Amino acid sequence: MTTTRLEAFSDGVLAIAITLLVIEIRPPELHPGETLAQALWAQWPSYVAYLVSFLTIGVIWLNHHRVFTQVVRVDGPLLLLNLNLLLWTGLIPFPTAVVAEHLGDGGEAARTAAALYCGVLLVMGLAFGALFAWVTHTDRLLGRMPPPGVVGAARRRFMLGLIVYAAALALSWVSAPLALGLCGLMALYYAFDQASVPAAMDPVGRS
Amino acid sequence: MTTTRLEAFSDGVLAIAITLLVIEIRPPELHPGETLAQALWAQWPSYVAYLVSFLTIGVIWLNHHRVFTQVVRVDGPLLLLNLNLLLWTGLIPFPTAVVAEHLGDGGEAARTAAALYCGVLLVMGLAFGALFAWVTHTDRLLGRMPPPGVVGAARRRFMLGLIVYAAALALSWVSAPLALGLCGLMALYYAFDQASVPAAMDPVGRS
Amino acid sequence: MTTTRLEAFSDGVLAIAITLLVIEIRPPELHPGETLAQALWAQWPSYVAYLVSFLTIGVIWLNHHRVFTQVVRVDGPLLLLNLNLLLWTGLIPFPTAVVAEHLGDGGEAARTAAALYCGVLLVMGLAFGALFAWVTHTDRLLGRMPPPGVVGAARRRFMLGLIVYAAALALSWVSAPLALGLCGLMALYYAFDQASVPAAMDPVGRS
Amino acid sequence: MTTTRLEAFSDGVLAIAITLLVIEIRPPELHPGETLAQALWAQWPSYVAYLVSFLTIGVIWLNHHRVFTQVVRVDGPLLLLNLNLLLWTGLIPFPTAVVAEHLGDGGEAARTAAALYCGVLLVMGLAFGALFAWVTHTDRLLGRMPPPGVVGAARRRFMLGLIVYAAALALSWVSAPLALGLCGLMALYYAFDQASVPAAMDPVGRS
Repeated sequence: MTTTRLEAFSDGVLAIAITLLVIEIRPPELHPGETLAQALWAQWPSYVAYLVSFLTIGVIWLNHHRVFTQVVRVDGPLLLLNLNLLLWTGLIPFPTAVVAEHLGDGGEAARTAAALYCGVLLVMGLAFGALFAWVTHTDRLLGRMPPPGVVGAARRRFMLGLIVYAAALALSWVSAPLALGLCGLMALYYAFDQASVPAAMDPVGRS
Repeated sequence: MTTTRLEAFSDGVLAIAITLLVIEIRPPELHPGETLAQALWAQWPSYVAYLVSFLTIGVIWLNHHRVFTQVVRVDGPLLLLNLNLLLWTGLIPFPTAVVAEHLGDGGEAARTAAALYCGVLLVMGLAFGALFAWVTHTDRLLGRMPPPGVVGAARRRFMLGLIVYAAALALSWVSAPLALGLCGLMALYYAFDQASVPAAMDPVGRS
Repeated sequence: MTTTRLEAFSDGVLAIAITLLVIEIRPPELHPGETLAQALWAQWPSYVAYLVSFLTIGVIWLNHHRVFTQVVRVDGPLLLLNLNLLLWTGLIPFPTAVVAEHLGDGGEAARTAAALYCGVLLVMGLAFGALFAWVTHTDRLLGRMPPPGVVGAARRRFMLGLIVYAAALALSWVSAPLALGLCGLMALYYAFDQASVPAAMDPVGRS
Repeated sequence: MTTTRLEAFSDGVLAIAITLLVIEIRPPELHPGETLAQALWAQWPSYVAYLVSFLTIGVIWLNHHRVFTQVVRVDGPLLLLNLNLLLWTGLIPFPTAVVAEHLGDGGEAARTAAALYCGVLLVMGLAFGALFAWVTHTDRLLGRMPPPGVVGAARRRFMLGLIVYAAALALSWVSAPLALGLCGLMALYYAFDQASVPAAMDPVGRS
C-alpha cells in the first residue's frame, strides 16, 4: 500500500463529504402568506452550518495532507486509523443537517443539535489525534523525523482542537449558536494557521 | 503542498458539484388528470437550471485549470482563496434547486430565486477574481510571468463576468427568466472563449 | 490542457454518476397490510433501471477510455464536445428515477418514462458520436492514425448504438419494458464487445 | 487499459459509495412530545447500519488494492468482473437505508431488511471471489505468481467471507440484529486481518 493510494482515497472521501454538504440545504417550503425571500432568510441555520462544516472539512483536508507529506510507509494500524478518521469525517453531513433543521427551533432541540455537532467534531478530533500520534511516535513511517519542536507544535495544535471542541460541547447546553460559533472559529483559526505555518515539516524536494 | 494535490482536490469537488446537479431534478408528482408527459414539460425550469449550472461549473473547471497551468508554487493565501472559490462553487446546486422549484411560479418567488442564483454566481466570480489577482500580481507563484497582454486579457474576461453577473442580478427584479438566460449566455461565451483562446499562457512543455 | 486532466475530470464525473444511481432506489413505503418483502418486490422497476443505467454508464466509461487512449492533444472543440457528452451522461440518473417510479404504472406514464429514458440515451449516443468523429476525422489529435479498418469498425459500433437507441425510443410507444430491455441488451452487447475487441487501437507502449 | 485507470475508477466508485452512506441518515422527524435527543436515540439502526456498511466498503477497498497490487495486465473479462463487483458494492447504500428504516420495527420488516442486507453482501462476496479466481488461476495477468501458500490463504479468506455472509443470511430469519452484527464482525475481522497480513503478496518495489 503506497501513501499515494491512501491519499487518493482519502482525498476522494473528503472531496465528496465537503461537496455533499450542499444537498442538506433544501429549497424552502413556502408557508401561506410567506415570500420566498422570507423563507430563505428563515433558513439561516442551514447556511451557517454549511459554512462551518465546509471550513472544518477543508481544514481536515489541509491537515491530512500536511501529515501525509511526511509519511513514506503505510502500516496496518495506520490504514485502520485513517479509515476511522474518514468514518467520522464522512459523518459530518449528518450533524450538519440536524443543526440546519433544529438550530432555529431554540430550546432542547437546538441544544441537542449543537451537542451532537460538537460531539462528532470532538470524536473526529480524537481520531485525527490518534492517527497523528501513531505517525509521529517514532520515525519508522517517516522519511526523516521532523525536528522535535515542529512535532511538538503540531501536537499542541491537535490538543488545542480537542480542548476547544470539548468546550464547545459543554457550551452547547448553554447556547447552541455560541457552541456552533466556537467550532467555526476553531476552523478559521486552523485555516489561517495552516496557511501561515512555514513548510518546515515538508521533506526537501517534496514540498 | 504541490499544485497537483490542490488541483486533484479541486477537480474532485468540481466533478462532484457538477454531477450532483442532477439530483435536484426530481421525477414529477402527478396531479390527478395529468399525464406524465405534461408533468415532465411543467418541470422545464429544472432542465434550464441544470443546463445553465452544468455549463457554469464546467467553465469554472476549464478556467481553474487554465490558471493553475501557470502556477508552480502554492502559498497559504492561495490555499484559502481556493477553498473560498470551492465554497461558493460547491454551493451552486442549492440556488439551482431553488430556481428549479420557483422559476415557474412567476412573481416574487421567481424573482427572488433568480436573484439568489445570480448573487451566488456573482460572489463566486468575485472569489475567482480574488484568486486570479493573487496568482498574477507578481511572478512569485508562477513558473514564468506570462506576457502582460495575456494577463490583461484574462483580467478583462474576469471583469466582464463580474459585470454580467451584476447585471443579471439587477435584471432578476425585472424578469427572472431573462436573468437566468443572461447567466447561461455568460457561460456559453466563456466556454467558447476558453475553447478558442490560444494556449499562449501555457508554459512550454506543460501544455 | 493535457488529456490526463481531461480524463481525470471525466472519470470523476462518470464514477459519481454511476454511484449516484443508487440513491434513486428508495426504501419502500409500506402500505397497510403489506409486508416489506412485498413492497421490495413491487419496486422491481427500480432494480431494472439501476442495472441498465449502471451497465450503460460503465460502458460509456470503457468506451471513453478506449477513445482517449489514442488522443495525445486536446483542442478547444474537443473540450466542448467532451463537456457535452458529460452533460448528457450526468443526466442519466434523472430518467432512471422516472423509469423507476413509473414503469410499474403501465399506460401513458410507463411509455413516457421509457421514451424519456431512450431519448436521453439517444442524445448521449449522438454526443459521443460527435466527439468520436471530431477525434478521428484527421490525425491532428492522435499520436498516430489507427488503421482505417479499426476506425471504420468503431464507427459502425457507434452507428449501431444510435440505431438501437432510436429503435428503443420508437418501441417505447408499444411497450415500455421492451424498450428498456433493448437499452439493456445494447449495454450488454457493448460491454462484451469492449471486453473482447483486441487492443489494436492502443498505441504501442501505452496499453 | 492500464491497471492505473481501472483502479482510479474503482477507487472513485468506492470512495463515493462509502461517503454516500451518510445521506441515508436523515435528521429525525419529531413526534409531538418527543425531544430531539429521544428522536436521535430512536434512530440507532441508522447508526449501526452506517457503521457496518462503512467498514464493509472500507474493507472492500483495502482488499481491492491488495489484489490489484499484483495485477500488471487487464483483460476483457477482468473489466467485466470488476464492473460486476462495483455494481453490487455501489448498491450497498440501498440495503443500508432499508435496514436503517426497518431494523427498529422488529418482526417481518426487520427480518426482511436484514435478509436483503446480508443477501447483497453475499452476492458482492461472490462477485469479488469470481474476480479473484480469474486473476489468480494462472499468472497471465500477474507480474509474477505469488507463492501458492499466499494465494491459498487469500482464497480461504474469501471462502470464509462467503460462508459467514450465507450464515448471516440464514440467521436473519431468526434475529435481524444478530445477522447485521455478524456482518459487522466479518468486516472487523477483515479490517484487522488486512492490516496485519504481511505484505508478502506485494511484488518487490511496488509495495
